[in-house]
Amino acid sequence: MPRVVDHAERRTKFIVASWGVIANEGLNAATLRRVAAAAGVTTGALTHYFTDREALLVEALRAAHFAAGARMLRAAGKLDDDRKRLLAVLEEALPLDNRRLQEWRVWLAFWGEAVGSLALSEENQRRIEEWRDFAETLVVPLVPPGQSTAVVAMSLVALVDGLGVRLALAPAATLASERRDARASIARAVASLGAEATAERKAIQNQGVKGV
Amino acid sequence: MPRVVDHAERRTKFIVASWGVIANEGLNAATLRRVAAAAGVTTGALTHYFTDREALLVEALRAAHFAAGARMLRAAGKLDDDRKRLLAVLEEALPLDNRRLQEWRVWLAFWGEAVGSLALSEENQRRIEEWRDFAETLVVPLVPPGQSTAVVAMSLVALVDGLGVRLALAPAATLASERRDARASIARAVASLGAEATAERKAIQNQGVKGV
Repeated sequence: MPRVVDHAERRTKFIVASWGVIANEGLNAATLRRVAAAAGVTTGALTHYFTDREALLVEALRAAHFAAGARMLRAAGKLDDDRKRLLAVLEEALPLDNRRLQEWRVWLAFWGEAVGSLALSEENQRRIEEWRDFAETLVVPLVPPGQSTAVVAMSLVALVDGLGVRLALAPAATLASERRDARASIARAVASLGAEATAERKAIQNQGVKGV
Repeated sequence: MPRVVDHAERRTKFIVASWGVIANEGLNAATLRRVAAAAGVTTGALTHYFTDREALLVEALRAAHFAAGARMLRAAGKLDDDRKRLLAVLEEALPLDNRRLQEWRVWLAFWGEAVGSLALSEENQRRIEEWRDFAETLVVPLVPPGQSTAVVAMSLVALVDGLGVRLALAPAATLASERRDARASIARAVASLGAEATAERKAIQNQGVKGV
């Protein structure tokens, strides 16, 4: 069905054009007219796919989630070791290259506008929940009994989000050193998780006490 | 000098009005005209204090930093114990009540617009650096030798920022439980810091080895 493929391709092209406009010029700039121009089509051609600006923006946010999620799943699939897998996924979520930096500038722009838009804030909430649920599946083997896997997962996701904001707003001159520090911060968080779990497991084995 | 006091009071009134507009309607809505209306004055009266919209927004961001910084210093001053002081300051930084929730929505709106504005991103960068430097002075007594106090401070600040984003965007229905989880997350981070430092100190005492 070549027409369907063509439609999907054009949709993707428009979404990618909207990411570029948002990341480089801010969300305000991302009007239907401006995105159409960036994609090299008329506004009319764009409205054939997206009825209004909000529909385009919700789709752009959703597609950015899917793209990031797919990369994280690939990162997770490559590794067998629980701790290395968690580390790889969290690093994949950070803006450590220019593509992900653009993605982060898109998140930031959306967060700013989500305050005033129900459609965007609901879409964003779904993304936050999916991301935390995925992180939780990865931390389960590393969290000792008696600790909440939900709180540990939320802490790691929040750490990544805070570091991501920092990197997305960092001046070009300090970006490289900020990226090094961010990786050190993530490595430290994952290592301390493993260390705690190991210490706890040993204590349980030594004392013959089963944690709750 | 009653006229000077009057000027400062009016400036503050306009800033507070701009916070309200930004937090409730988004940064786009915060035009000189809209902020003037929210403050109950004419646009002309407002431009007597702020030459243009960007000048007002930079001042609104700066004033929000000062207000948050002053609260954190007060929180720090009340406590003698290093760990309790750090915890109190980090909690003060989270949007755990409505005033701080409004403040966080102001940060989010600014982050979104900082992508496209040099004045806002430079102002924001200064705030990030001041906040991390302040956090670093608080973590120094809790970080064992051989660990970077800068990385620990950045990790805690990033964790607070990530949790703050989460709470600022949380739907009203889940806000209370999200706030509980966020406090648990911060408490966990501060406790593990203390535990690591204590374990490290004991190991050093027992082995008579001095860490670097």
